[in-house]
Amino acid sequence: MTEWITSSSNNKLKLVRSLQARSRNRQSEGAFVAEGVRLLEEASSVKWPIAFILYDETLSDRGLKLVNDLQDQQGVEAAQITPELMSDISDTESPQGILGVLTLQALAQPSIPTFIVIADQIRDPGNMGTLLRTAEAAGADAVLTTPGTVDAYSPKVIRAGMGAHFHLPILSSSWDEIEPIVKDMAVFLADVEADNTIWQADLRQPCALLIGGEAFGASPKGEAIATHRISIPMRGRVESLNAAIAAGILIAEVLRQRTQLKEE
Amino acid sequence: MTEWITSSSNNKLKLVRSLQARSRNRQSEGAFVAEGVRLLEEASSVKWPIAFILYDETLSDRGLKLVNDLQDQQGVEAAQITPELMSDISDTESPQGILGVLTLQALAQPSIPTFIVIADQIRDPGNMGTLLRTAEAAGADAVLTTPGTVDAYSPKVIRAGMGAHFHLPILSSSWDEIEPIVKDMAVFLADVEADNTIWQADLRQPCALLIGGEAFGASPKGEAIATHRISIPMRGRVESLNAAIAAGILIAEVLRQRTQLKEE
Repeated sequence: MTEWITSSSNNKLKLVRSLQARSRNRQSEGAFVAEGVRLLEEASSVKWPIAFILYDETLSDRGLKLVNDLQDQQGVEAAQITPELMSDISDTESPQGILGVLTLQALAQPSIPTFIVIADQIRDPGNMGTLLRTAEAAGADAVLTTPGTVDAYSPKVIRAGMGAHFHLPILSSSWDEIEPIVKDMAVFLADVEADNTIWQADLRQPCALLIGGEAFGASPKGEAIATHRISIPMRGRVESLNAAIAAGILIAEVLRQRTQLKEE
Repeated sequence: MTEWITSSSNNKLKLVRSLQARSRNRQSEGAFVAEGVRLLEEASSVKWPIAFILYDETLSDRGLKLVNDLQDQQGVEAAQITPELMSDISDTESPQGILGVLTLQALAQPSIPTFIVIADQIRDPGNMGTLLRTAEAAGADAVLTTPGTVDAYSPKVIRAGMGAHFHLPILSSSWDEIEPIVKDMAVFLADVEADNTIWQADLRQPCALLIGGEAFGASPKGEAIATHRISIPMRGRVESLNAAIAAGILIAEVLRQRTQLKEE
């Protein structure tokens, strides 16, 4: 049986609006919203806890199959709403006709991590989501976000993450929590002024990559925790790289060294 | 003398709206819009032809100095408008109080290029602008955009390009124009399925990197022109990289090989 919701003051719709709007609400409710068939398929594939899903008549056959599967196999509550209500609660301009309210939880990180990414003062949700997607693609152990960094569970970050949230441990952390995690690791800070390049650095050792924000770079705490500074050498007249691009180049270099170079 | 514009039907404002809205209008007018102090400073630094600039009373001192310099040193026409009119014609939610109408022109590319990036079916303006920014930072000779790729002079591409447009030859090209340019080059297509990795490929030779679109990869013409397929090896459970990130990793690998590896 599928519930029908026709009133915009329904409690489920109110909850979705509240979760889309603010990080604080996501924290207090312990939940976040994921939109679209692909993301919810990804969540379903790992049995991520889903409080309920909402869909409308525009949903594709593939999406309807997902709704049925979630109801039958995982007992997820589903309700149908009108496309107008969907448009009202969706964060996107072209809603895909389905969204879910999911439990906010961090996946367990390995007890002895060897590859961590720290996002420090990243403000742009597109950059943050792309960073998460790249970190997951490279098999990083975890991404830590520092105070002042955009909430990794905001709608645009979820969207740009392309499913990374359902596989990668993502921890919104205080500096007091970060310090013990990285205390036995080399912490590399990307810094255009550094003499040592990413190609010269030894990224085969257990390490954390600290990626500073778009406007002002890393925070003072981030600078203090870094044990090495390394530069991405460039030749052009543009003075800096996009933060997500810098992260991508660094992450790929970790993989290259660990794949290509034997221990010397 | 600075002109004052108070009517939203003024011809300059109409032109700006038209250029912001459509690629076709930019083509027919031979002009595009750049917003913000930093971008216009960059344009000024290379003496890029500027038809006129519009600013409002919220403009910073640094911006006002730029307006004066452009008027005095380059004879650029400037007009003041109200913040309401600026908000109306600006492509951004938080206008910086200045924009300029600039001549659409391609910078000359080197007669014997050794490093070209081809953007084939990139649709997202943020990805396209970031790709241009990275290509310029790495000192690429030119970026070619294929039919079906987002217009490199659309407002969001200009913004994400962070000034790359004023240094890097960017050519919107037909396949007939692209073929002779790359005919003596290796053309590398990024392909997750390829056996050969970006680390195994010889990127020191004169080469073009062909970056396919977000949704469906490269076009059939792009696939046909490619002489090599190479993969960016990944380890995680996310199936692909963001297009701008893939481009960034490839571009950085070209630089690494050309900087680090001697000819063998």
